[in-house]
Amino acid sequence: MKGLFITLEGGEGAGKSTQVERLSRRLRDSGRETVVTREPGGSPRAELIRASILAGEGKAFGPLAEALMFSAARADHVETVIRPALARGAVVLCDRFADSTRAYQGSRGEVDEATLRALERVVVGATKPNLTLILDLPADIGLTRAAARRREGRQAADRFEQEDIDFHARLREAFLAIARAEPERCAVIDARGEPGQVADEIWRTIRERVGVKTLLTRP
Amino acid sequence: MKGLFITLEGGEGAGKSTQVERLSRRLRDSGRETVVTREPGGSPRAELIRASILAGEGKAFGPLAEALMFSAARADHVETVIRPALARGAVVLCDRFADSTRAYQGSRGEVDEATLRALERVVVGATKPNLTLILDLPADIGLTRAAARRREGRQAADRFEQEDIDFHARLREAFLAIARAEPERCAVIDARGEPGQVADEIWRTIRERVGVKTLLTRP
Repeated sequence: MKGLFITLEGGEGAGKSTQVERLSRRLRDSGRETVVTREPGGSPRAELIRASILAGEGKAFGPLAEALMFSAARADHVETVIRPALARGAVVLCDRFADSTRAYQGSRGEVDEATLRALERVVVGATKPNLTLILDLPADIGLTRAAARRREGRQAADRFEQEDIDFHARLREAFLAIARAEPERCAVIDARGEPGQVADEIWRTIRERVGVKTLLTRP
Repeated sequence: MKGLFITLEGGEGAGKSTQVERLSRRLRDSGRETVVTREPGGSPRAELIRASILAGEGKAFGPLAEALMFSAARADHVETVIRPALARGAVVLCDRFADSTRAYQGSRGEVDEATLRALERVVVGATKPNLTLILDLPADIGLTRAAARRREGRQAADRFEQEDIDFHARLREAFLAIARAEPERCAVIDARGEPGQVADEIWRTIRERVGVKTLLTRP
């Protein structure tokens, strides 16, 4: 794989979408092909599955069936979008990926860890992110931001956002635990500041971790 | 689990559906609650997934995504139909189950064995069949029977039946290999004879393997 696979993770209101956009602009301005994508979804067939799960139809499935549906969507996304982009040397920026499954499903505790790990191994396989940016924020700030965003009509409520603050605190802890367990792959980014500040910290982190040459050289 | 989980496996034209019906009648006549089901499908949500896969929409998915969709359907089927029936002491007769996935997907060679095994472990878990009847038939006889059945309009062609005879010969070998690998769970049934003969052999095999008392006693 000649490209670079960077994922952004974190709870609601952490600013992932904003930061993905800013980062892609910076990379494109530097002349590097950048593919922006997201999960759940990210490919036409995966979006179909995403839509049915987020609309709550998926909730009718048991937790294991739901995790398998998400895995099928991810397999399609990886195969049709992420791998081809990496193969031609692009930087792929993905708004949520496997760590969100670990954190959300894991925090719910409805599917056991061994099963989630087996599914991740099957689906992600060799396509592990080179770098994962975990946008970290206290749960109350994140939920306040997410609520403001909904009031502005910028995003519809989905069923994950209806969960209470305890769940989001557990979620934050789950993301931080992933970062502690895989420090080589993960970097924790303080997401409390203004978008510009956070973007600068992200850029600094990427340059440090990946190296300017790798980052900006067309492969 | 107080019930008894029996699966029927084999290639096209082996007479699985006919034998499932005969066997369920015999068990019901003996006063034992019997639940007849099938895969892919078997529960309302699993049938939705089955329909989209067999119609060929699923073919647009890659082999791994397709295997995951089948797994999601199976997880729903096991959770909502098979386990509850076993828990209340019924005999569950299932027309195709995990061995069909092993044989069909495995013979195609598009998804590696380790992945298929991991998915089966995740989805089937503790709900392994007590007995698996493998209805065995030379590929050419099976395909001739299946073609006759289609001409009679008793079953529409699906995409698996459009495969050629070599594939069906590999499939037969895959089922026999499963029987050799798990002789305690599997019994090979010669499916060349008349339906009545085959039904008698099945009944003899079940009585031998399960025991008349277990088979016919209401738990």
